[in-house]
Amino acid sequence: MPAIANYRKHLEEIALLSSAHALLEWDQETHIPDKGIQARSRVIGRISRRVFELTTSPDLGNLLEELRTDGALSQAERASVREVGRQYRRRKAIPADEFEAFTTTCSQAQAAWAKAREASDFQAFLPHLEKVVDYQRRFADYYGYTEHPYDALLEDYEPGMTLAQLEGIMQPLRDRLAPFIGRLADEGTPPDPSPLQGDFRLDKQRALARAALEFIQYDFECGALDDVEHPFTIAIAYGDVRVTNAYKQDRLGYGLFGALHEGGHGLYHQGMPEELFTLRLEEGSSAGIDEAQALIIENQLGRGLPFWKAFYPTAVQHFPELAAHSPEELYRATNLAEPSMIRIEADEVTYNLHIMLRTELESGLIAGDIRPAELPRLWNEAMERYLGIVPQSDAEGVLQDVHWSFGYYGYFPSYMLGSLYAAQFHQAMLDTVPDLDASLATGDFAPMLDWLRGNVHQHGAVYLPGELVEQATGSTLDSSYFLDYIEEKFSAIYRMDRN
Amino acid sequence: MPAIANYRKHLEEIALLSSAHALLEWDQETHIPDKGIQARSRVIGRISRRVFELTTSPDLGNLLEELRTDGALSQAERASVREVGRQYRRRKAIPADEFEAFTTTCSQAQAAWAKAREASDFQAFLPHLEKVVDYQRRFADYYGYTEHPYDALLEDYEPGMTLAQLEGIMQPLRDRLAPFIGRLADEGTPPDPSPLQGDFRLDKQRALARAALEFIQYDFECGALDDVEHPFTIAIAYGDVRVTNAYKQDRLGYGLFGALHEGGHGLYHQGMPEELFTLRLEEGSSAGIDEAQALIIENQLGRGLPFWKAFYPTAVQHFPELAAHSPEELYRATNLAEPSMIRIEADEVTYNLHIMLRTELESGLIAGDIRPAELPRLWNEAMERYLGIVPQSDAEGVLQDVHWSFGYYGYFPSYMLGSLYAAQFHQAMLDTVPDLDASLATGDFAPMLDWLRGNVHQHGAVYLPGELVEQATGSTLDSSYFLDYIEEKFSAIYRMDRN
Repeated sequence: MPAIANYRKHLEEIALLSSAHALLEWDQETHIPDKGIQARSRVIGRISRRVFELTTSPDLGNLLEELRTDGALSQAERASVREVGRQYRRRKAIPADEFEAFTTTCSQAQAAWAKAREASDFQAFLPHLEKVVDYQRRFADYYGYTEHPYDALLEDYEPGMTLAQLEGIMQPLRDRLAPFIGRLADEGTPPDPSPLQGDFRLDKQRALARAALEFIQYDFECGALDDVEHPFTIAIAYGDVRVTNAYKQDRLGYGLFGALHEGGHGLYHQGMPEELFTLRLEEGSSAGIDEAQALIIENQLGRGLPFWKAFYPTAVQHFPELAAHSPEELYRATNLAEPSMIRIEADEVTYNLHIMLRTELESGLIAGDIRPAELPRLWNEAMERYLGIVPQSDAEGVLQDVHWSFGYYGYFPSYMLGSLYAAQFHQAMLDTVPDLDASLATGDFAPMLDWLRGNVHQHGAVYLPGELVEQATGSTLDSSYFLDYIEEKFSAIYRMDRN
Repeated sequence: MPAIANYRKHLEEIALLSSAHALLEWDQETHIPDKGIQARSRVIGRISRRVFELTTSPDLGNLLEELRTDGALSQAERASVREVGRQYRRRKAIPADEFEAFTTTCSQAQAAWAKAREASDFQAFLPHLEKVVDYQRRFADYYGYTEHPYDALLEDYEPGMTLAQLEGIMQPLRDRLAPFIGRLADEGTPPDPSPLQGDFRLDKQRALARAALEFIQYDFECGALDDVEHPFTIAIAYGDVRVTNAYKQDRLGYGLFGALHEGGHGLYHQGMPEELFTLRLEEGSSAGIDEAQALIIENQLGRGLPFWKAFYPTAVQHFPELAAHSPEELYRATNLAEPSMIRIEADEVTYNLHIMLRTELESGLIAGDIRPAELPRLWNEAMERYLGIVPQSDAEGVLQDVHWSFGYYGYFPSYMLGSLYAAQFHQAMLDTVPDLDASLATGDFAPMLDWLRGNVHQHGAVYLPGELVEQATGSTLDSSYFLDYIEEKFSAIYRMDRN
């Protein structure tokens, strides 16, 4: 049997078990009864171990080596060898015992973090954090890097990205965002958020979320919408890409934009051909590109005026009280921008400052320039510098995110990159589809979806994110698309001259 | 490592994969989107194959052989060796190629059956049926038997049961049921079923089904209730035993009794200790014992007057229109008994005649005394003899059930045995808990549940069904409990002297 056929057979085995694994995880967050969780963790552990064995097996290593120089492979097959090969090398890079000890450390650190946040007690979390950071610094050495150890960790989430590149991307954000936020506060007229605040029955919110997903042509024959505490999207298999969502009774936007966000992820993975699932390319080009698919639907679409013009009758049908406001008022109500303590509640304008703060701190931790004990002070200083506000407690400061407790270092930049990619994709879309907003305002989502399908979704992880963005937009990643978008949109909403 | 520890480790591997398999199956019937079904079948096939390998591995064979004579085993461990050993021997008995060909044949036969039933065309199904019957006859020889080849197939569903024993059980049913049905028709005053017919909103029916499950103390922290087309109960793991249900808008009883039936299965598997799951004894003593747990809740409880007295306020709360009737009228409305063509719509009195007919025909097929081509004629003759009615088409006759198309021969008797066990358990319960009905009438289900837990549920498959029934009721299986129950209950409902 030729190597590529063997390789595909090996991937099929991984794909089948990964699909079972994905369903077990999905069910654990959606439908599992409380008393079933204990047994479930053992089932998931067993399937994970088998997938780990298959993704690090010597047979796979030999096939990857042989295929690396096979000139007869298709483009997708070459990408598969690249992606599966990266995962293989990274998983082999860490000694098995050390990785297992790290997993245990993270599990304890996560529990300690939850208690420490509850008590707003950073010192209780610190010894755990120090251990996790030590592991991550060692792992960066195992993985290897050219310029900066943080690059070794970024590679998991944004292949090809380096801290130096991130610096180049972040500098314009530093230069323009904070001053713009100052102008919004000093010169702007903030929009009134109250039309989307009140008392909104959850079953009706669920129906509205479903209608929003139908608007964006999320395919329910190939998906599902379920309630969870922390929303996520999961590709269980080709033809089975499910979204989840959460709702708050007093804020309609929470569940609606949550649904659009997850729906954006859903469109990405529903838009990939079966061949990409077969070749393990269905996770997408990078965490940042995946996030961009969610953000462009949540923000550029969902917090945009054309959407509110089109979706207005549906929204009023589900919540007749909204008829007291015009589509423009509802659009404005979704776009209040002001400095706040908590990242996940931040608006489009301030969100990236939260991410930059984290990126600076975690890259410093990994380099050894920052000690974990210094984090609370450095966090608060950066909040003051970027947003002009200072947390009153570590719970609303350095302890707010779970990521650092379970070893997700290098992930935060994906959120920022997602917003930058989204703005750049959106501008490219507007350039090639000039009547995009007019179509959207009549409820026709097809032109937007066609652009996303053609330029992003159908490619899965065939291209590295840098290649993808250049191919889709004609230029490398550039923060100015995002900054222009933010300044233009929010200057209008806040009724200011743009400058 | 001692053999028992090795054995338990081997079982754990089977249990973990079987749990994943169960969730994949559950999801396939409840939540999977249409386009995900194709990929799912491959995932299920892969996990099934691995479970099959593990349950037939030479290592397991050696362990079973060694443990068969190990005097230090606990009672549950001995039962495990017996049950896992039976499955091992039966799976090894069929040559792998032949079993695979049989699976393909069944898959085609099932598709052919569905079309044939649609068209009421037995001849189109006949060639498939002949093949399936041939396989089953060969399999009976492979499995081996002492008296009758049908015994070899019964063993899968009702270990220890033989056709000769079934004959002894069925004869009193033949002698007493048909005459009693005649008396009901000639001398009885049928109850009015109309109170439970009408237009019942499905979301309210779901809520009522949930309330019924709460009445019987089905544990939702250890389970779930979901919609499906064909209801079933599934033990995904210890702490995770889910029921499913279906509803009809025009008949309240359909969904309510369906929920109680599945809830009865659910109580059985929720009532087994974790050790039994560990030892693969959680499937229960037999299909008949499992069915009895469902039927005693559906019929002895749910179609009984004490339940309707207690459940009346809940039923009225969900469907205020029911307040137009007394609890007694609702109780009577659930107990119309009359000959009908379709087994799954038959009442408590006539149901077993449908089963006896099938048992006679399928045992004749397996013995070679009946040729498949003769079935339509023999079916209609038996319907005339037992129920006094004759199907107008094969669709409402010999083609109505799916079982024979996918090789479930020897399963039908479980339905009948379930009703006989249920009546016998119920009488034993009444004998030891004299105020049982008084408790139920006040909404206190605990005495009934305690009896079931103590005498049946907690034992799982530790005892063979024959042992279990004798231990729980003090006598071997005896049809007269069922017949007495039916005659007493329905004589009263039909306002006749008992004879």
